[in-house]
Amino acid sequence: MDIDLNADLGEGFGPWRMGDDEALLGIVSSANVACGFHAGDPQTMDRTVRTALARGVDVGAHVGFPDLAGFGRRPMQMDTRELVAAVVYQLGALAGIARSAGHRMTHMSFHGALGNMAAADAEFAAPLVRAVADFDPALTISSSASRAIEDAAERCGLRVRTTFLADRACDEAGLLIPRKMPDSVIHEPERVLARVRQLLEEGTVTAYGGSRIPMRVHSILVHGDTPGAVALARGVREVVEAHGRVVPISRQPA
Amino acid sequence: MDIDLNADLGEGFGPWRMGDDEALLGIVSSANVACGFHAGDPQTMDRTVRTALARGVDVGAHVGFPDLAGFGRRPMQMDTRELVAAVVYQLGALAGIARSAGHRMTHMSFHGALGNMAAADAEFAAPLVRAVADFDPALTISSSASRAIEDAAERCGLRVRTTFLADRACDEAGLLIPRKMPDSVIHEPERVLARVRQLLEEGTVTAYGGSRIPMRVHSILVHGDTPGAVALARGVREVVEAHGRVVPISRQPA
Amino acid sequence: MDIDLNADLGEGFGPWRMGDDEALLGIVSSANVACGFHAGDPQTMDRTVRTALARGVDVGAHVGFPDLAGFGRRPMQMDTRELVAAVVYQLGALAGIARSAGHRMTHMSFHGALGNMAAADAEFAAPLVRAVADFDPALTISSSASRAIEDAAERCGLRVRTTFLADRACDEAGLLIPRKMPDSVIHEPERVLARVRQLLEEGTVTAYGGSRIPMRVHSILVHGDTPGAVALARGVREVVEAHGRVVPISRQPA
Amino acid sequence: MDIDLNADLGEGFGPWRMGDDEALLGIVSSANVACGFHAGDPQTMDRTVRTALARGVDVGAHVGFPDLAGFGRRPMQMDTRELVAAVVYQLGALAGIARSAGHRMTHMSFHGALGNMAAADAEFAAPLVRAVADFDPALTISSSASRAIEDAAERCGLRVRTTFLADRACDEAGLLIPRKMPDSVIHEPERVLARVRQLLEEGTVTAYGGSRIPMRVHSILVHGDTPGAVALARGVREVVEAHGRVVPISRQPA
Repeated sequence: MDIDLNADLGEGFGPWRMGDDEALLGIVSSANVACGFHAGDPQTMDRTVRTALARGVDVGAHVGFPDLAGFGRRPMQMDTRELVAAVVYQLGALAGIARSAGHRMTHMSFHGALGNMAAADAEFAAPLVRAVADFDPALTISSSASRAIEDAAERCGLRVRTTFLADRACDEAGLLIPRKMPDSVIHEPERVLARVRQLLEEGTVTAYGGSRIPMRVHSILVHGDTPGAVALARGVREVVEAHGRVVPISRQPA
Repeated sequence: MDIDLNADLGEGFGPWRMGDDEALLGIVSSANVACGFHAGDPQTMDRTVRTALARGVDVGAHVGFPDLAGFGRRPMQMDTRELVAAVVYQLGALAGIARSAGHRMTHMSFHGALGNMAAADAEFAAPLVRAVADFDPALTISSSASRAIEDAAERCGLRVRTTFLADRACDEAGLLIPRKMPDSVIHEPERVLARVRQLLEEGTVTAYGGSRIPMRVHSILVHGDTPGAVALARGVREVVEAHGRVVPISRQPA
Repeated sequence: MDIDLNADLGEGFGPWRMGDDEALLGIVSSANVACGFHAGDPQTMDRTVRTALARGVDVGAHVGFPDLAGFGRRPMQMDTRELVAAVVYQLGALAGIARSAGHRMTHMSFHGALGNMAAADAEFAAPLVRAVADFDPALTISSSASRAIEDAAERCGLRVRTTFLADRACDEAGLLIPRKMPDSVIHEPERVLARVRQLLEEGTVTAYGGSRIPMRVHSILVHGDTPGAVALARGVREVVEAHGRVVPISRQPA
Repeated sequence: MDIDLNADLGEGFGPWRMGDDEALLGIVSSANVACGFHAGDPQTMDRTVRTALARGVDVGAHVGFPDLAGFGRRPMQMDTRELVAAVVYQLGALAGIARSAGHRMTHMSFHGALGNMAAADAEFAAPLVRAVADFDPALTISSSASRAIEDAAERCGLRVRTTFLADRACDEAGLLIPRKMPDSVIHEPERVLARVRQLLEEGTVTAYGGSRIPMRVHSILVHGDTPGAVALARGVREVVEAHGRVVPISRQPA
């Protein structure tokens, strides 16, 4: 079994840092790099991409709403054309940074509120996914389980990499439970590792309500911005290596 | 004689507009499009690129300091690596917008204070021009007459398109006189047109001090953000057509 | 009959302008000045306040969402404490600019989406209005007709100045019809002037559905950012002067 | 001997934090609060001011260049009128936040590059200090030793609180050595504490070149954003308490 291990990185801005990117880039096989809208700036992007290249880590664009103060976690009502342009702008910026560094961009994912809205709403997702395909049909979309994203990608001929957010509760359709809900974010490392083991051994996830749902994933997301995050990421890697191999999507069979 | 006629466009931001882009896109053969740092936003960029495509106008990235409030006209002291990343970010963003629209980016130019600093300082220009080459060696750099830019481009194998700013005074090295100096911006349409005629007929420009210097250009810049600008741009086009043809750089012989 | 005539001014940003502030400051008796969140910047605020002082025009803070690109017209989901702090920040900034210029801030109003949300939702309005009272209980709130705002203000002991938006359709509760709806913005000058006359003569407004509703106002808002706006503002002033006097709220009896 | 102990606080932005504000607010007697230009946002300002009030800590506005990405550490070329308006805007914003929280603003200081430029250049400092006096003549200016600031303040009738930056090297005029210079920032806690002891016991500081210069201060600045900063701040407080009392400027005799 080949599993990609990925993390959201480059989430600092100017003088501020978030998470231990250096450590995580020694653990994961792919990085979703913030593109300056919800976090990140050109120099942070450049540094993240160059370090990823040196460690053999794939990079993708982590695309969000233009909302640094809210970290892209607040729903915004943007005109569809404006939003599509904002997505393409971010894809282009990261692709440019990667190309200049001698790396290449293999994938993209939607961040925060933009990701939640796209995962839950087929009509909202369609033009965004179409914009990704218009920009570069060879990109993979990385997403938590979402019929809306998967259907839109299939219509555009784009590949989707389903990602398991090991520390986030999901409902029976696989959609993330909002952060405001109690117990939507799983803080205990042992529970997170148990969820990863269950996924790898049974192909199931225990949903928010308690029932087990099947889930087929190519990737597991780890976080770097909480205390103990790096140790937990190493723990997840060990669990994956006990069941298979850590392989970035770009080297997994289609 | 083939002359490119170009303009700085897409210089609005959010609800604000600057200049009559629609009219100018019916006059020029190439557009330098603001990339969101000194002006512009993703939707404005997208609209500008699509209109340019429809009119057969080349597009390039107009790259500036990250300073919307100052319109990129204030010198900033940025670390070289940060500045290089900012240049690449902007190139990538516009290239992405152009690709998604079915257009392609043929050139780039440095805006405002960034442009003045690069034109006057070989050491400052070198890493910026190198960044353009690392991003895409097929791009042309559009610049007012500058040995610093030309030498740096030659070392990187990049083509330079020398542009005549018809309404801006220059010194005997061809460098622009700062805006703060009296008579550095030429407002009278007749004087602007006379300078264009002199350039096309004699290959010379009358410098700030009064002496005539030789200037070999491939392109003439017109502005769109002042009263009478569109009429003047039409006037410049007529002068060019009386002496040769308006042809974008990408279709001029190398 | 004393009527305040007011306008939203200082709505430029950096190099960009919106509307003819100079002309309007010769027509109105009070100005709502953008505070840098949806529009405006410190220098624009300072210039607007100093010109208002010279013309004997009252100034107030026009407080909006932090969204320059969307001009504060997009609903945002902000935490209440964050939003309250943002309102106070803007009030303080304009009060400081006014004090330094030797003027004083007499009133405030909520702009765009923030204003619409506050006018329509008592629970949303209450902490915002409370924040105004905590900042300065002597301020007047300027608002289109809204029970939510009026009730909240009464509980805090704040005075409300009800403002008639002559060129915006309203429903039978006096709430503004969203801009997206057809005919929500009235463009024909004659219709706008007729609405002002009806208000002054009958104390009524014809609502979106066609019925006449009573409206008691202390102020009429004119706009400056559309073609013909200044002429229309002069027309409104003439209508008011034919029926009474143009007097800023701060000099109207309580 | 009464000495104010102060720190630059509220230097986070949106989701990002810098330093351990909670701990420092239990140690210092006054806080310089970032006002949203080089760092800080309305909610962070509000939280910092309310915690300061609860701990009996004075608050002042820490005023900087509008440059979040560069943390206000980069010199910017702004027009004097624009810069003066930016200073007043920030003063007003923090004064408003403080007033709404039931606290009051007692002082202000210039941050980073703005502070360095003002401290070293009398012509640059004069209009900025005048703007502080125009805003509120009762404010104290907190500054490292600077004749430029002191002279300007005296002309305006403003009180200056000279602050010792215990971990920053200074030249023989007391001006800070730029951060780029080697050993300009003193990292060893023992050296920092020794400098505080020397100041309190001898009234002198050892300048960058090695000579001892007299320095008369009312305040000592501690930092919160480096490892070990909180422990060092406690150490400085202990040294001060061994020689006198920690007393905010507003309660020191004039």
